[in-house]
Amino acid sequence: MGKWVYLFKEGNANMRELLGGKGANLAEMTNLGMPIPQGFTVTTEACTDYYKQDKKISEEIQKQIFEALRWLEEENGKKFGDNEDPLLVSVRSGARASMPGMMDTILNLGLNDTAVEGLAKKTGNPRFAYDSYRRFIQMFSDVVMEVPKSFFEKVIDEVKEARGVTYDIELTADDMLELIRRFKEVYKKHMGGQDFPQEPQEQLIEAVKAVFRSWDNPRAISYRRMNDIPGDWGTAVNVQTMVFGNMGESSGTGVAFTRNPATGEKGIFGEYLINAQGEDVVAGVRTPQPISKLEEDLPDCYAQFMHLAMNLEKHYRDMQDMEFTIQEGKLYFLQTRNGKRTAPAAIKIACDLVDEGMISEKEAVCRIEAKSLDQLLHRTFDPKALEEGEVIGSALPASPGAAAGKVYFTAEDARNHHAQGERVVLVRLETSAEDIEGMHAAEGILTVRGGMTSHAAVVARGMGTCCVSGCGEIKINEEEKTFTLGGHTYHEGDYISLDGSTGNIYDGDLPTVPASVGGYFGRVMGWADKYRKLQIRTNSDTPVDTENAVRLGAEGIGLCRTEHMFFADDRIFKIRRMILSDTLEEREAALSELIPFQKEDFKAMYKALRGRPMTVRYIDPPLHEFVPTDPEDIEKLAAEMGLSVEEVKSRCDELHEFNPMMGHRGCRLTITYPEIARMQTRALMEAAIEVKEEDMYDIVPEIMIPLVGDAKELEFVRNVVVEVAEKVKKERNSYINYHVGTMIEVPRAALLAGEIAEVADFFSFGTNDLTQMTFGFSRDDAGKFLESYYANKIYESDPFAKLDQKGVGKLIKMAVEQGREKNPGLKLGICGEHGGDPSSVEFCHKIGLNYVSCSPYRVPIARLAAAQAAINNPGRI
Amino acid sequence: MGKWVYLFKEGNANMRELLGGKGANLAEMTNLGMPIPQGFTVTTEACTDYYKQDKKISEEIQKQIFEALRWLEEENGKKFGDNEDPLLVSVRSGARASMPGMMDTILNLGLNDTAVEGLAKKTGNPRFAYDSYRRFIQMFSDVVMEVPKSFFEKVIDEVKEARGVTYDIELTADDMLELIRRFKEVYKKHMGGQDFPQEPQEQLIEAVKAVFRSWDNPRAISYRRMNDIPGDWGTAVNVQTMVFGNMGESSGTGVAFTRNPATGEKGIFGEYLINAQGEDVVAGVRTPQPISKLEEDLPDCYAQFMHLAMNLEKHYRDMQDMEFTIQEGKLYFLQTRNGKRTAPAAIKIACDLVDEGMISEKEAVCRIEAKSLDQLLHRTFDPKALEEGEVIGSALPASPGAAAGKVYFTAEDARNHHAQGERVVLVRLETSAEDIEGMHAAEGILTVRGGMTSHAAVVARGMGTCCVSGCGEIKINEEEKTFTLGGHTYHEGDYISLDGSTGNIYDGDLPTVPASVGGYFGRVMGWADKYRKLQIRTNSDTPVDTENAVRLGAEGIGLCRTEHMFFADDRIFKIRRMILSDTLEEREAALSELIPFQKEDFKAMYKALRGRPMTVRYIDPPLHEFVPTDPEDIEKLAAEMGLSVEEVKSRCDELHEFNPMMGHRGCRLTITYPEIARMQTRALMEAAIEVKEEDMYDIVPEIMIPLVGDAKELEFVRNVVVEVAEKVKKERNSYINYHVGTMIEVPRAALLAGEIAEVADFFSFGTNDLTQMTFGFSRDDAGKFLESYYANKIYESDPFAKLDQKGVGKLIKMAVEQGREKNPGLKLGICGEHGGDPSSVEFCHKIGLNYVSCSPYRVPIARLAAAQAAINNPGRI
Repeated sequence: MGKWVYLFKEGNANMRELLGGKGANLAEMTNLGMPIPQGFTVTTEACTDYYKQDKKISEEIQKQIFEALRWLEEENGKKFGDNEDPLLVSVRSGARASMPGMMDTILNLGLNDTAVEGLAKKTGNPRFAYDSYRRFIQMFSDVVMEVPKSFFEKVIDEVKEARGVTYDIELTADDMLELIRRFKEVYKKHMGGQDFPQEPQEQLIEAVKAVFRSWDNPRAISYRRMNDIPGDWGTAVNVQTMVFGNMGESSGTGVAFTRNPATGEKGIFGEYLINAQGEDVVAGVRTPQPISKLEEDLPDCYAQFMHLAMNLEKHYRDMQDMEFTIQEGKLYFLQTRNGKRTAPAAIKIACDLVDEGMISEKEAVCRIEAKSLDQLLHRTFDPKALEEGEVIGSALPASPGAAAGKVYFTAEDARNHHAQGERVVLVRLETSAEDIEGMHAAEGILTVRGGMTSHAAVVARGMGTCCVSGCGEIKINEEEKTFTLGGHTYHEGDYISLDGSTGNIYDGDLPTVPASVGGYFGRVMGWADKYRKLQIRTNSDTPVDTENAVRLGAEGIGLCRTEHMFFADDRIFKIRRMILSDTLEEREAALSELIPFQKEDFKAMYKALRGRPMTVRYIDPPLHEFVPTDPEDIEKLAAEMGLSVEEVKSRCDELHEFNPMMGHRGCRLTITYPEIARMQTRALMEAAIEVKEEDMYDIVPEIMIPLVGDAKELEFVRNVVVEVAEKVKKERNSYINYHVGTMIEVPRAALLAGEIAEVADFFSFGTNDLTQMTFGFSRDDAGKFLESYYANKIYESDPFAKLDQKGVGKLIKMAVEQGREKNPGLKLGICGEHGGDPSSVEFCHKIGLNYVSCSPYRVPIARLAAAQAAINNPGRI
Repeated sequence: MGKWVYLFKEGNANMRELLGGKGANLAEMTNLGMPIPQGFTVTTEACTDYYKQDKKISEEIQKQIFEALRWLEEENGKKFGDNEDPLLVSVRSGARASMPGMMDTILNLGLNDTAVEGLAKKTGNPRFAYDSYRRFIQMFSDVVMEVPKSFFEKVIDEVKEARGVTYDIELTADDMLELIRRFKEVYKKHMGGQDFPQEPQEQLIEAVKAVFRSWDNPRAISYRRMNDIPGDWGTAVNVQTMVFGNMGESSGTGVAFTRNPATGEKGIFGEYLINAQGEDVVAGVRTPQPISKLEEDLPDCYAQFMHLAMNLEKHYRDMQDMEFTIQEGKLYFLQTRNGKRTAPAAIKIACDLVDEGMISEKEAVCRIEAKSLDQLLHRTFDPKALEEGEVIGSALPASPGAAAGKVYFTAEDARNHHAQGERVVLVRLETSAEDIEGMHAAEGILTVRGGMTSHAAVVARGMGTCCVSGCGEIKINEEEKTFTLGGHTYHEGDYISLDGSTGNIYDGDLPTVPASVGGYFGRVMGWADKYRKLQIRTNSDTPVDTENAVRLGAEGIGLCRTEHMFFADDRIFKIRRMILSDTLEEREAALSELIPFQKEDFKAMYKALRGRPMTVRYIDPPLHEFVPTDPEDIEKLAAEMGLSVEEVKSRCDELHEFNPMMGHRGCRLTITYPEIARMQTRALMEAAIEVKEEDMYDIVPEIMIPLVGDAKELEFVRNVVVEVAEKVKKERNSYINYHVGTMIEVPRAALLAGEIAEVADFFSFGTNDLTQMTFGFSRDDAGKFLESYYANKIYESDPFAKLDQKGVGKLIKMAVEQGREKNPGLKLGICGEHGGDPSSVEFCHKIGLNYVSCSPYRVPIARLAAAQAAINNPGRI
């Protein structure tokens, strides 16, 4: 049968999984002897059971609820639904992880037509009693029965108008009675003739169900997805004796933190209202007072509160966020929890708690949400300007930061105007590899299409450039260079501002402020580096990004995409000539002209790395990504190659692919055109040897072959690479060492990892492609259906953002085990977008990878997440 | 150290893996006491070792070769390179499986400038000796040293011209000496000043190396790919004492079969030449005599040959293909092997051998190459007409059969002219789902693009329609409706003929003859059905195909693709209206009009199946495949829907996908638009109930959800299906049963098969998509690089034709094990193209599937392959 219901006094803080956070803390505070209105918790398991029973609460659970209720009646000396002195309760959700505002609450439950009279008599305050009842009807109808709130608000407005009053507070007890009467009518009408339930036990069971149901409302689902909370946890329900802060001048209610949640400053921070209920604080009718004012109003309560709050912080060894109510001079705590805080506050509090001797360094490291570090590293808008700014639209917060600048519609325009010293925002339908230089020039990027892992989003995050993507509401006219959004039409050169952390788009030129990374940040990162086992590398293709990443703590480059080097003006023609050549000789001639460029690029990268290692991925994208689409470019190319426009077009057309993602790319290119790998090897080896000699760095080039699915593929390319590398060594009289490895990004590579490991020095899991191929959908196309998947609870999170440990992870684990078995010296890493996602980093730690590699701005996140993983999973050597 | 070289007398027929087919049979014949020129075999392991040692023959192997050679000298009483009576040998390849003509042979090895004089003296035939030497120089230079043959042919032509003669045979001994002199000059010049090797031991080792090398020549690689022969087997080398059929009128050489390889008729079938070497038979200078003529020429030899040939057939219990040479009245067998034969011959021989008591039914079943049955089931060209026909081009033999008809360039034209009674050949750049009806109307299909698994190829094989695909040489002008090939230009209405079994394209209207499937076929199929464990189903979407498949032995439908039903004229508009609708109501309205059509389709299918089961796959392709691209169609649709052309176009554009293969398709469609699944379920259930009642068949609809990658996806769609199905049952007052299962075609589905099995009644492995996603390349795009992969020995076969057991097969096995573990009643099958490939069928048998499903014309192949798998793998229950 099991135990489905716990009295507060039966639980404790460690029972969070079963009782939810709120329930566990209410139990803990009860055990601490704090003033808590007593009650009980219906467990998260009961919630899971409710869903398993096709949304029914079993007989057994109902029985246990009523048993707990009887205890509560005795404890309070009041009866549920009593005519003299009725017991009233609140019914609140409380999940394992805090999900503020996501689920539903019902207050004053237990009132009915007769009990309300008892309450009126007992309190001697009929207006209070009737007000409580009408509030209950309203809340119950809305939350439990889904009668729209607006119906009741309309009634209130009508009554106020009839009475000629402006505020609710001006309504009399009789007015409240009138409201109750009319509310019940609304209820009956909407519920098909059913009367408002008068039986408190029925009210209670329906309310519990409603809370269970609210676990799966759309905003809760979406919140869970954003915060990595599993959908099968379920919520507990807390049933607690009501206390009232609205019983006169010696009553009140408030919220307080033990430290400032925005700055981390030590000291009670909060506000309260005398003679009010929690609702009133939210409604904003009256302005709350700072908590210090309570000392004047109710000095005893204030002293008791301060004392208990400090005790709570000491007990939980963390900053507390508390709700309290004072009923006729008696203080009650309704809730305490570890307070949410901004990233700067989190870092300061963690350092302060260590200095105060309350927590260890390891604990400090675990107290900071790794993801939140993102906030610290980018420019933000001046908060005042933000308040006044006009939001003209909103889309996906694809890459954090704040940007304001003049709108341009092509990469070329963006680059040119940037060169003239303008701040530029690039607005595109979607971006492609050709836009890279324009993206580099821009303060921010706004796209009409594409999701969180679209080209624009991925590249922008890599660069640390603010990006808002997938703004479908934009009507763009690329020819006339205008776009319309939120009723405004913008022409080339008009100002807009983007907030990449919220996805908001603003009219005009909002002022921004730089990120201020204080000493606390460095201190926490130092602790993280001390405890983590994983190395942290970065994905970077330019010296600027590399220097930035090194500044943020990167220990090397895990992924240098060489094709990005081909798009600059001085190279693209050469690569196009290579592609359009008919013979090996022509291709080799075109490629040989590329060697000096690519070599200089590699030299610059090695110099930026100052001795740190670099994994260089050879050419990956299909060749059609390099050929021109613009008629002007085609003509130019034809003229330069001495071909007709038709010939160039037809050759470009031949490169067309039905599914470019699954086409002629990666090592498949090197197998059909080994001369490309030869060129890249020569450039890389010469660069490494020269920098090694010039700067005395101990460089060991790491050559990474993409898209391998068979050991023989890697073997073939490896032979090509080794032949050229050895030749260059001989020419340069060098003894430089080098490694050849592969990406594991095709499912077959993971399945056959043992064989592949025998010819590889390292594996790097390319989890972007591996996710796409394992799921069988492309991230560019998934946008069309993923929303339906979230809404129908088929997926809880975006597998491109958070690694799918069950499916893709199974392949990775298989590959790690087989690879290590066949090649114990195999080095293992990951270089997909997941390298910067904390839960994915933890997975990488657990399965024993050597490093993760992520975009530069995620390096601190990865460092912290790796430390947390090491601390929470001490088993790994 | 190991044993690398075996004398013939040391081996036997069971040592085929080590000695190759030829070597094992020479050993066996030696043991049988037959007249065999003695020799030895260098093993296949030595070949593998040669490749492992970076193309070197180890000291040890060379030592063993020379030891064997010494034995051979003693045996023959002749010395290698002797001045008086030199030992001459032939050096021939011999792999485990017969690969006729694929690898190299060198005759007369052991001759040099002095030994040739000995031979001349000993035989008293200087011309013979010099001719043998010049042939050896020519062969050795070509095969071993890669000096082009043409250089030598040019010399022969020059000498003949100088002597004023026409035929080689007219050249004198002195002319031969002149040839020898000049051949050696050619050799020296081409070999950078090196003389022709005079040391016979050096000649031998170089020749052995050349044979090893020839294992990896391009034509051998390609032959292996076509015949499923693994590249790591290697070839053995047979070194055998030369015998000469060209030593006068009592000498000769010939080839014979114990039964007719074309018809299977019993009786010696072969031909020979008096006073000739094997080469001369091939050169076609003289016309060979039928073997019966030998009785007149050399009656003793004939009698001995007949006796031994019959003994060989009895010994091997199969039809033999033998080579023999008669040297001065003495008969030698040079080779015997099981003879290659046509499919009709194979079937007749198998039946005859059973009737003659030589083999069992099981052996008979295993004697027929399953793939070859393809030849029996399609129309073929009249062989005489074929000889006279002009081949204008050649491309991939995508779907077997012969077709002749008038050329049309659009599906619509093809259909219209077919309706007027014309025989039609559809010529397209490539085909798409819209062309289905035109393809149905055509006798044959010719495409410019696409490989063996392109849309055209797959659909044509399914229909049993002849198809030649990927003819890149065609210059097509779709607007003017003409194409050019092989110097001809064809206009609409001109005749061409296609041979889908060879890939040849002929000018004009060649007459065809229907397939004649005699009683032998039925008898063999009967045995196959008796021994196989796998059920054989078919992939079929139309009643005509279904009836055909049932006639060919299909036990049900394993894959009925419902979307093919949407393309007919009377439906496509409705489906387009559904797609372009904005609201659920509009979509439901459009879909409800489709129900009667789809229901009638299902009813017709069930009636054609006469009680056999059918697995119906719900809509799979992305919606953009259904929308019009033709401007006229767009206008029409806009008019009919009351929308502007712009609106229709823009809605169609929105459906664009970057990677349609990995886009919004399969169950993803049903999750975003559950109304489609509702429509299909209603149509199917109503059809099943009606046919069940009308015809009293025991129908259990099998509903298959495509592209599932997560148990929750299937659960969601299953709930939609069950809801409608139960509703229909209630409406119709029916107790019909039904199953809901899924395709396993996304790697993640295989990885998580255990979870999925808990909500599935059956799995069907969609190995086409599973192969694409596991390898990470699309079959439409792979053509660009697969040839390089074969050439570089990275892949040995097309993974879309032959299941990749190592990679994709690993996923399938995993899914079978996990699926059965969680749901022991799970039914398992396969419905990709691989269902008709014999080696893949064997794999399916071994891992314990319940059925395979393939295109109708492959059903007999699958039946036979399944029987062979069961006989060869008796372990499975």
